[in-house]
Amino acid sequence: MNAFNVNEHMQALGLQAKAAAAQMARADAAIKNKALKALARRLREAGPELAEANARDIDRAVAAGLSAPMVDRLKLTPKVLATVAEGCEQLAAMPDVIGEIIGMKQMPSGIRVGQMRVPLGVFGMIFESRPNVTIEAASLAIKSGNAAILRGGSEAIESNKALALLVSESLAEVGLPVDAVQLVQTTDREAVGRLIAMPEYVDVIIPRGGKGLIERISREAKVPVIKHLDGNCHVFVDDTADIDMALKIVDNAKTQKYSPCNAAEGLLVTEAVAPKFLPRIGQVFATKGVEMRCDAAAGAIVRGAGLAAVDAVESDWSEEYLAAVISIKVVKDVDEAIAHINRYSSHHTDAIVTRDHVHAQRFLREVDSASVMVNTSTRFADGFEFGLGAEIGISTDKFHARGPVGIEGLTSLKYVVLGQGEVRS
Amino acid sequence: MNAFNVNEHMQALGLQAKAAAAQMARADAAIKNKALKALARRLREAGPELAEANARDIDRAVAAGLSAPMVDRLKLTPKVLATVAEGCEQLAAMPDVIGEIIGMKQMPSGIRVGQMRVPLGVFGMIFESRPNVTIEAASLAIKSGNAAILRGGSEAIESNKALALLVSESLAEVGLPVDAVQLVQTTDREAVGRLIAMPEYVDVIIPRGGKGLIERISREAKVPVIKHLDGNCHVFVDDTADIDMALKIVDNAKTQKYSPCNAAEGLLVTEAVAPKFLPRIGQVFATKGVEMRCDAAAGAIVRGAGLAAVDAVESDWSEEYLAAVISIKVVKDVDEAIAHINRYSSHHTDAIVTRDHVHAQRFLREVDSASVMVNTSTRFADGFEFGLGAEIGISTDKFHARGPVGIEGLTSLKYVVLGQGEVRS
Repeated sequence: MNAFNVNEHMQALGLQAKAAAAQMARADAAIKNKALKALARRLREAGPELAEANARDIDRAVAAGLSAPMVDRLKLTPKVLATVAEGCEQLAAMPDVIGEIIGMKQMPSGIRVGQMRVPLGVFGMIFESRPNVTIEAASLAIKSGNAAILRGGSEAIESNKALALLVSESLAEVGLPVDAVQLVQTTDREAVGRLIAMPEYVDVIIPRGGKGLIERISREAKVPVIKHLDGNCHVFVDDTADIDMALKIVDNAKTQKYSPCNAAEGLLVTEAVAPKFLPRIGQVFATKGVEMRCDAAAGAIVRGAGLAAVDAVESDWSEEYLAAVISIKVVKDVDEAIAHINRYSSHHTDAIVTRDHVHAQRFLREVDSASVMVNTSTRFADGFEFGLGAEIGISTDKFHARGPVGIEGLTSLKYVVLGQGEVRS
Repeated sequence: MNAFNVNEHMQALGLQAKAAAAQMARADAAIKNKALKALARRLREAGPELAEANARDIDRAVAAGLSAPMVDRLKLTPKVLATVAEGCEQLAAMPDVIGEIIGMKQMPSGIRVGQMRVPLGVFGMIFESRPNVTIEAASLAIKSGNAAILRGGSEAIESNKALALLVSESLAEVGLPVDAVQLVQTTDREAVGRLIAMPEYVDVIIPRGGKGLIERISREAKVPVIKHLDGNCHVFVDDTADIDMALKIVDNAKTQKYSPCNAAEGLLVTEAVAPKFLPRIGQVFATKGVEMRCDAAAGAIVRGAGLAAVDAVESDWSEEYLAAVISIKVVKDVDEAIAHINRYSSHHTDAIVTRDHVHAQRFLREVDSASVMVNTSTRFADGFEFGLGAEIGISTDKFHARGPVGIEGLTSLKYVVLGQGEVRS
């Protein structure tokens, strides 16, 4: 497919999405939920076409020499399909936020002013490998009353096309516009460049993937991007921390899973508490095979307890390991902890363990991160744990949505004004 | 000043603003309010330096042959100074929204999750001519706990420098960082290019000025822009409208002032009501010298009533006249009215006059504009009339802030999570 055709294709998708978005914005909650349930049913009852499409992608990936984990991520097993089907049903069961009116108040002029929640319009989602994201994105679009243009990874193109067909059939079944969810039909990279530069059709871009992809998209996009870069999360153990609680929290934040963005990558401990705390958490880490990259003071204590420590270098303070590695630093007090976090953290999630009310309040207010926590694990920074019902992503930006983003991140609030003939004097 | 120096200057402003922003975010409401009152006092008591600086700008403008209205906009009369001083005092009297916590709820895991309102960090404001905007922007920065970098018009540079000095003195007087509000010291245009492309220091740009300036900044900015383009606002008179009410509203929306962005530029009337309504509103417009640019049906009725009408051309439906001109179109029904508005309006403010509940609800929900109104004048779309206390601008975007933007538009919500040792299982 040449560049000219890609342009035409993207233009057509944009126009159709825009038209569908207007219809989706008007759609009743009941109809949208019916479409979600139909999609869940079609996923569960999917015929051989889907399995065959998926097999073609897998064969191609194996032939291309992709690593086993990369090939695994492509697989639409019955378990994966059941999980995304369940996700659709959960969305269907959630209350609909579109059309809600908040803060309606009467003004001195007599007019009543409030805000109505409405869909943003059209979102573009750009993602890599896992084809199940096609269904996640489609179901979010349906529930939120937006239209979506989806661009999946080239390695999953056959699976994505087969899944997108199930979405179209579900939309058609309930009388919603099939263009509400469209898949980019080409693997040409030029299509991404067009998708992120069509402000006339696309209201927001949501990239999912590696940091490189997200940085490139953010740099080149002509529309807003709900972006999640890295998660360099910290736990700070304060002077007055309950040591047993701190052990449990730091252990959980680091070792419960290594790969999530809300896992802790840095541990800060005050001078006063370090001699008591570091030998104990060091023992836990040593047992679990977690490498400790320590500043001089922390290293001395860890080694003094007969455990292995690696000398941290400057780059350790900024790194998102996503692995069995943690940086450890002894700090003088809460001031130094807050300063360190604000300098090195990725503004994702940071926690303090303390009994000191003033320190807790200062940490909450002054740490400039999307989620700030007292006496609990950074691993809770998640749309479902925060009660959002669905998670579009986690935003490390401050503009529009910040932190875990639910359906509301795909909406905007417009002012509604009700009068009885009032005019401005 | 050469390009190299401009870069260094902007870099220094950015670094200093970032450092000041952290201090401003921590500042108590009482201190910020004290700074605002000190600024009001200094504006009222301003010595000859300010008047002399302003006189130099005016002399230069006159010598350069600027038009009389342009020269007038530069003048810092005692009345202008009293008005901005009063604005500072009004902001000081407003409740402080920084640090408020909303929606705190306990989750099944035991953690409590809410959101805290915090400043965005650093905003850049770019404005033309009127030097009083320096004070408006400075006072918004102080109240909202942000730092600001201000870039005023070159024609007002001397006045802006003198005003910025009063701001610095007020900040210093109460112990707030003087770098919280900084004025770009050069009139080199390169400085604007740098200001809008420093995501490492600047969180959001607020341009105030002509559409050309705002379009250019939006296109080139590497950070989010709170932008207000044009206001092509409509009033739609529905079948069931109370004719006297419709007359009052349409008259007010069009003629109370011609220059504001929330003045009506288009009138839509249903076929059924046009023969009754158009002769009467036409009489009002004719008396006030408002030119009527009509489609064929409207033109026939207006001319039939013995009044002058101009034939509208396609471009009339999109135009923001900001003058004694209105476009008039007869539509079949509420569907055609909504479709026309969604196609041609600038998504600023649109109103329906009706007694029909279903039509009112559909108009509110389906018209894709920042402010949608029933039975009242578009002229009410304003931060003060909406009870926001202060107005940063009116956003025609959907992302982050939409419609009139108050102090909250300069803030973000971060998640706060309170635990008692809970961990993720």
